Amino acid sequence: MNDSRPTDVAAHGLTTLEAVRGVRVAAVAAGIRYADRLDLVMLAFDAGTQAAAVFTRNAFCAAPVQIARDSLQRSGGQPRMLLINTGNANAGTGAQGLEAAQRCCDALAGLCGVDASEVLPFSTGVIGEDLPVGPIEAALPALFDDLAEDGWPRAAQGILTTDTRPKGASRTIEMPGLSCTLTGIAKGAGMLRPDMATMLAFIATDAPLARPALERLLEAAVERSFHRITVDGDTSTNDAVVLAATGAAGGALIGEADDPRYGAFADALESLCVELAQGLVRDGEGASKFVEISVGGGLCTAECLDVAFTIAHSPLVKTALFASDPNWGRILAAIGRAGVADLDVDQVRILVNEVLIAENGSRAVSYTEEAGAAAMAPVDLRLEVDLGRGDCRETVWTSDFSYDYVRINAEYRS
Amino acid sequence: MNDSRPTDVAAHGLTTLEAVRGVRVAAVAAGIRYADRLDLVMLAFDAGTQAAAVFTRNAFCAAPVQIARDSLQRSGGQPRMLLINTGNANAGTGAQGLEAAQRCCDALAGLCGVDASEVLPFSTGVIGEDLPVGPIEAALPALFDDLAEDGWPRAAQGILTTDTRPKGASRTIEMPGLSCTLTGIAKGAGMLRPDMATMLAFIATDAPLARPALERLLEAAVERSFHRITVDGDTSTNDAVVLAATGAAGGALIGEADDPRYGAFADALESLCVELAQGLVRDGEGASKFVEISVGGGLCTAECLDVAFTIAHSPLVKTALFASDPNWGRILAAIGRAGVADLDVDQVRILVNEVLIAENGSRAVSYTEEAGAAAMAPVDLRLEVDLGRGDCRETVWTSDFSYDYVRINAEYRS
Repeated sequence: MNDSRPTDVAAHGLTTLEAVRGVRVAAVAAGIRYADRLDLVMLAFDAGTQAAAVFTRNAFCAAPVQIARDSLQRSGGQPRMLLINTGNANAGTGAQGLEAAQRCCDALAGLCGVDASEVLPFSTGVIGEDLPVGPIEAALPALFDDLAEDGWPRAAQGILTTDTRPKGASRTIEMPGLSCTLTGIAKGAGMLRPDMATMLAFIATDAPLARPALERLLEAAVERSFHRITVDGDTSTNDAVVLAATGAAGGALIGEADDPRYGAFADALESLCVELAQGLVRDGEGASKFVEISVGGGLCTAECLDVAFTIAHSPLVKTALFASDPNWGRILAAIGRAGVADLDVDQVRILVNEVLIAENGSRAVSYTEEAGAAAMAPVDLRLEVDLGRGDCRETVWTSDFSYDYVRINAEYRS
Repeated sequence: MNDSRPTDVAAHGLTTLEAVRGVRVAAVAAGIRYADRLDLVMLAFDAGTQAAAVFTRNAFCAAPVQIARDSLQRSGGQPRMLLINTGNANAGTGAQGLEAAQRCCDALAGLCGVDASEVLPFSTGVIGEDLPVGPIEAALPALFDDLAEDGWPRAAQGILTTDTRPKGASRTIEMPGLSCTLTGIAKGAGMLRPDMATMLAFIATDAPLARPALERLLEAAVERSFHRITVDGDTSTNDAVVLAATGAAGGALIGEADDPRYGAFADALESLCVELAQGLVRDGEGASKFVEISVGGGLCTAECLDVAFTIAHSPLVKTALFASDPNWGRILAAIGRAGVADLDVDQVRILVNEVLIAENGSRAVSYTEEAGAAAMAPVDLRLEVDLGRGDCRETVWTSDFSYDYVRINAEYRS
C-alpha cells in the first residue's frame, strides 16, 4: 500500500529536499543573537492550504506557542505563513513577550497582504530575554524576497540552535489517484534543552488533505515518532510540529481512513516523522550512542512505553551505554521500578544487539562478558526487552549520557 | 514534646555513636571482594527484641531481601541477628542466590544457637555474581567474637561500598517514663547505584516498643526521610531500612499515638532518619551540591512531591546546579511538566537561597544575574517553589549532576 521512498538526503550538509508544490521557503540572517547566521525562516503557503499542529504539553507555554495555537484556530486552520526565529525563545517573558510575537506577525502580515491571524510564530533560543523585534522587522522584506520553492535546505539550516547538523527528509508517493511529495525539516529534540533548543518540525505536502483528517494523521504520526524520543526527559516550553497540505497535487480530498490513499499517506508521514525524530536523537547533546529500545511481550502500549521510557531516562543505564558496558543489572533494575503491576520477573528477557544477556530475572546462562562487550561496541544499539506476558510491543529511541552532556548543559548560558 | 538532642558525631571519621542497651555490634574483614577491608557486619539483639523493616519497592528483589522479608515474618518480628555483607549484592542470581544467602544465615544461626529464621541477611555490592559463601562462613566465628556494645562506628565503616565516608547518628530521649537511646547507621543512597551501592540503614533503640507501633513509626519516618531523597531517580534491588527495639530501657510498652512518649520517639526517629538520609545525599556520587527542594502552596502532598521530584530528577536542572547557574527557565520548565492539573503558571514563584528569581511565570522584576549567581554559589542550596494554590508544603533533598557522576557510573564495573 505504501509506495513512499526516501529521497537522497545526506545526513551532514543537507542538499536535496524535494520541493512541495504550493510552498515557498526562505531563510535570512537577521542578527537576532549572532551576526551572519541564518536565524529567521519563513514558510509561505498558497491560499487554501490546510494545516494541523501539535504543541508542547508543558504547562508553561512560550508566547509564540500561545499565539500560534490561537491564530491557527482563528484562521480556520488555514495559515498562509509560518515565521520562525532562532536565538530567542520568547519564553518566560509575560505580556511583553506576547506583544512582541504579535508585532512580528502583524509586520509580516502587512508586508504580504494577509490577515495577522494567518501568520503563525515559532521561536527557539534562550529563555527569559525579550524578543528583539527591531532586527526581525528590519529583516522581513529580505526574507520575503528570498522565498523560493527550493528554499528548504537553507530553512533546515536556519532553524538550528545548538544542533550540529540540519535535519530534513522527503517522501514521494506515486499511486493511482495520488502523486505527491512530503518534505519536512526539524531541529532540537522533543524532550531536551528547554533553554537553547526546543523541538520544532515543519512538514508540508501537496496532497489534498483537509482537517480533521490532517489532524488525525499528524497526531498519529507524532505519537509514534516525536513522542517516542527522549534525550533527558525534559519537555520544552516551545515544542511544535506543523503539517501543512496545499492540495496542489490535485484530486479529490482524502478524508476517510478507508481511502487507500489515506493509508499510503499515513505510512509516508510516519516514516518521514520517524526519520526526523531519529535525526534529533542522533544529534542529541553529547550523544555518542543511538539506542533503540524495543519492549515487547507487554499487555498494552502503556506498560511497554512505561518500561521503555524508564530505561531510556535512567541515568545509570545512560552512563553505562556511554561506557559501552552491558550492565544488565541496571536495565533490570529500571524495568523493576517501571511500575508494571504483577510483573513476573522470571519471565523477563533482555537482549542487546541480538545477544541474550538476561533471562529468568538474572544473567543468561549463555552470556559471556566478551559477547556482551562486543554487542555494546557499535554506535547503534538495539535494546530488546521481553516482558513475557502479552503481545504488545512498542519502541522508543534515545541517546546516552556523556561527559559532553554535562559540559554542554553546565556551561551553556554561563 | 521532643526532648531528643543530636549527639556529637563528626561527619568524617565517625567516632562517637551511643551504645544501645541490648544491642551488640561487630565488623570484620572477610575478603569478600577486597582484602583487608571491613565487609561483614553483624548486629545481635537480646531476646525479646521487636523489629520492623521497609524494603525496596523494585519488582526485582535481591535474594537477601526475599529471605529477610520472609524470615522477619516467620520469626514473629523478633529477629536475633542481622548479617550484612558488602562486595556482593547477591542480586540477579536466581535460585542459587537464595540458597547462598540461606546458607550464610544457617551457619550464623548454628554458631549462635538461634533459629535460622531469626537471622536476617542483607547484601550490597556488585550485581549478578555468585555470593562467595566460603569466605563468609569462615569469618563468622571472628565476627561473633567481635560483638560489643560499642561496635557501631566499625559497623558504620563495614557496610560501605563506594561511599566516601561512614554515616551514623544517635539521639537520646530523657522524659518522664522514658530514658532511651536511638542509634543508626546507613550507607549508599535510596535511589542510586543499584550496582555497587543500595541504600541500607540499621537503627536500634532500647525503647520499649512493640509492633504494630514499631511498624507505623518506621514507615512514617522513612516516608519523610529516605523516601524524600534522590540522587538519580534509580531504585536499588536491595534497599532496606530496619528498626529494632530491645526494650532494655524498661517501662510499659509504647503502643498508642496518644502516649506522650510515642510522639517524642516519633520526632527523634524522624530527626535521626533525616540526618542519615541527608548524609547519603551529601555523599552522592560526584555530588558537589546539597540541594533542599521545598515546594509549597500546593493542594496536597502528592502534587508538592510530584513537582519537587520532577525538579530533582531533571538532568537539565541538575547540570545547572553543578554549574552554580541560576537557570530559572529549566526549573520553570520542570514545574510545567510535573503534571499538576490546572496549574496557574502566573502564580508560581521560585526562590534560591531566599533570592526571588521568578514570579508570574517569568523572571522576577527585582532579579539580577549577580544576585542569582551569588545565591547559587554555596554548596548548600535551598530551592523554594510556591505554587500559589494551597497550603501544603513538602521537602525533598537531592544533589547535582557532575562530570564525576558520569565518570563514576561509566567507569564502574569496567
